[in-house]
Amino acid sequence: MSNTSDNYPASNRRDFIRTLGVIGAGVTAVGALPSAEAAPSTRPSGARYMGDFAAPKLEKVRWGAIGVGARGSGHVAQLAQIEGSEVVAISDLYDDLAKKSADKIKKLGKPEPVLYSGSPTKYHEMLARPDIDAVIISTPWEEHAPMAIAAMKAGKHAFVEVPLANTLKEIWDVVEVSEKTGKHCMMMENVNYGREELMYLNMVRQGVIGELLHAEAAYIHELRGQMKELPRGTGSWRTKYYSTANGGNLYPTHGLGPVAQYMNLARTGDTFDRLVSFASPGRGRGLYAKENFPADHQWNQMKFECGDITTQLIKTKLGRTIMVQWDETSPRPYSRHNLIQGTKGTLAGFPDRAAIEGRGSYHEWIEGEDFKKLYGEFEHPLYKRMGELAVKMGGHGGMDFIMLYRMVECLRNGEPLDQNLYEGALWSAVRPLSAKSEADGGEPQKFPDFTRGHWKTTKPLGIVS
Amino acid sequence: MSNTSDNYPASNRRDFIRTLGVIGAGVTAVGALPSAEAAPSTRPSGARYMGDFAAPKLEKVRWGAIGVGARGSGHVAQLAQIEGSEVVAISDLYDDLAKKSADKIKKLGKPEPVLYSGSPTKYHEMLARPDIDAVIISTPWEEHAPMAIAAMKAGKHAFVEVPLANTLKEIWDVVEVSEKTGKHCMMMENVNYGREELMYLNMVRQGVIGELLHAEAAYIHELRGQMKELPRGTGSWRTKYYSTANGGNLYPTHGLGPVAQYMNLARTGDTFDRLVSFASPGRGRGLYAKENFPADHQWNQMKFECGDITTQLIKTKLGRTIMVQWDETSPRPYSRHNLIQGTKGTLAGFPDRAAIEGRGSYHEWIEGEDFKKLYGEFEHPLYKRMGELAVKMGGHGGMDFIMLYRMVECLRNGEPLDQNLYEGALWSAVRPLSAKSEADGGEPQKFPDFTRGHWKTTKPLGIVS
Repeated sequence: MSNTSDNYPASNRRDFIRTLGVIGAGVTAVGALPSAEAAPSTRPSGARYMGDFAAPKLEKVRWGAIGVGARGSGHVAQLAQIEGSEVVAISDLYDDLAKKSADKIKKLGKPEPVLYSGSPTKYHEMLARPDIDAVIISTPWEEHAPMAIAAMKAGKHAFVEVPLANTLKEIWDVVEVSEKTGKHCMMMENVNYGREELMYLNMVRQGVIGELLHAEAAYIHELRGQMKELPRGTGSWRTKYYSTANGGNLYPTHGLGPVAQYMNLARTGDTFDRLVSFASPGRGRGLYAKENFPADHQWNQMKFECGDITTQLIKTKLGRTIMVQWDETSPRPYSRHNLIQGTKGTLAGFPDRAAIEGRGSYHEWIEGEDFKKLYGEFEHPLYKRMGELAVKMGGHGGMDFIMLYRMVECLRNGEPLDQNLYEGALWSAVRPLSAKSEADGGEPQKFPDFTRGHWKTTKPLGIVS
Repeated sequence: MSNTSDNYPASNRRDFIRTLGVIGAGVTAVGALPSAEAAPSTRPSGARYMGDFAAPKLEKVRWGAIGVGARGSGHVAQLAQIEGSEVVAISDLYDDLAKKSADKIKKLGKPEPVLYSGSPTKYHEMLARPDIDAVIISTPWEEHAPMAIAAMKAGKHAFVEVPLANTLKEIWDVVEVSEKTGKHCMMMENVNYGREELMYLNMVRQGVIGELLHAEAAYIHELRGQMKELPRGTGSWRTKYYSTANGGNLYPTHGLGPVAQYMNLARTGDTFDRLVSFASPGRGRGLYAKENFPADHQWNQMKFECGDITTQLIKTKLGRTIMVQWDETSPRPYSRHNLIQGTKGTLAGFPDRAAIEGRGSYHEWIEGEDFKKLYGEFEHPLYKRMGELAVKMGGHGGMDFIMLYRMVECLRNGEPLDQNLYEGALWSAVRPLSAKSEADGGEPQKFPDFTRGHWKTTKPLGIVS
């Protein structure tokens, strides 16, 4: 659901294509994966397990923001309006975007943020400020991990747009820095706060569909139009990712996050074990470039070899299965699948529908008006409390606001976050693992255990009210 | 869509569970697969490629039927009513079922079939009759291959219910006997004759959704109730198949057959390359047994370890992908997915829906009444010719009748069949290959090339009118 910022930083993108090629072809992987996979099974001394981490209470959460483009500008405007939350500083590559967000916050009657803009390294100056508690990062994918690491090393909690990082090596680095600094690093999966997703979480926790056996997740979202966002904008950097053959599922977390929490993965009970992936041929971006840009345009100088649709199968330690798909190219309607299947029924999305043993015939879906009645019975307490305000505040139908509100609330209460470090790490690991599986002809890839065995004793996410 | 006959033969089912266990665990596979996979790359002398085979014209097609239970009884009643088709003889384990089908045919004013019933080997006597041209086999899965082989060796064309066979070894045996005897062996995939499927075939052949990249197929059909079909009936033998861990996709062809023909697999252009499979835990059958049968009942003496839902990913030689699922246990509505995705759009089933570039917004599905309008433009010529009669004749909404009619028509015209030997072989191979992949932790399995390279020069299935 998120488009990360369009504008930070461009400096090191000259070698972007080459780097992607290397990652995609598994060449760095050959160097990086074995050591990444074989990461120490014991945590270095001085490092702590972060799965149930609660930071000391903050009376007010003082934010620094890196990246206020298409995505980050919405975040800072919302954060500025949450009680006990203040946007102290903003960094962006572009002066005008930084100023625009600052003006908006000022107009809301909130203190005006200090700006650090105009250079790709300027954010380091912002991180040196002692009056910032947490940093929110909404930049291109390749910047997520380095910026989160820099923020934590500067003593700030890090909140990062999806995905957490691009490679297994980067994910391990993020994990280790968080464990060493004792700072939160949450990948902000907004979809886990969708109204339907919250209700399904509530229903599965109540046992409505029995023992959970299988899930389906996707990010099917036709975004070819982004290719026209030039010279800056999401499409200006994101489009380049589609060039790499065997690129894997570039954007797995929106569909996967919610179903992983339904299934309680990376918490007591079960976790990710292995994954296989196949990609279709890549055709759509090249066709779109031909139809929409002149022959000498950069998009017509590039081969778009990443599969138009990629499909993964994940097996958990308990043997449960998840089918994951990604397609940002093909002309078809949006879907995240959002399907969770148990011994007593199935809940699914796009369109919302349910089949529950003992509630009418499970041979027909409960849908439309009948589906809406389920909210009367199973609306999640968090949505009951915040839904009305969230819809007013907006951001993908309110899910963004609930997420940001909860981040502030947990930090102020000194409570563990709803999504822990390792969940973001595991959900994001689907990208490099699927790329590797595709390059290896569908060979299964083991998920690293970023928790180093601690998933077995980490409390499940409860029904937050 | 089909339930194969419930009643033929029980004699060799005593060792059934043990045998299944062996197959499922890949133990026979270890013995059988290597030789099966390494089957001669050249065809034995005297054998011929059957992919484009047309048998000499028959003025009348004289049928022998093996198995007239839940499935076969419908077939013989329809075959008896098709012009140029006569059911000469019927064999069944049970006298009463054979008689019931014969009576029905007599009542239709057709010549009464001769009966061969009462013993599991009695069908061999029927096969010795010189006045039978073709045999239709609707028996439990484990009998399909041996009976088809016996029929062809007796000089008859074989028409077999789905799946063609249980193991790769059996599939190779069927292929080699057909090639040596010059007799047809068609696996009767009725779903390829569904109205929606025929229209989609027509649409993709016209290029409506561009280059085909990805498909999805399933047999999701809650059939736990079959467990009550005792002492004889489909559930009496089929239920036992669910006992085997890593059983794979036991019933892949109904969803797969149509999408494989859309994609023109095993014909000029592309064919199946490899497959991966993961199964969920097996829970539903055991729970159902506990709730519905006494503790000492055979279903409560058995462990149901076959995954409730299994998911496969198939990669074709051209790199296209197919996601296949099977679930006969979970309480959820029926689906075969029937999804085909191309560069210009996606067609899907359950419910029927389409998204086509250039026809309104592809961000919304064309469905309901708008979908029905597509029939005005794209109805398949075969359905235009036969649809009205087929609906009257029945059999899964008419698809059975169109299939049987086409079998007779092709034999009478001396034309190749709509589904050739190798298509049935490849679609059925998903079962043993998925079992092996599951047993091996998701390892990719190569499809044997049953055509021995001839798929490259076999004509695509045209738009039969």
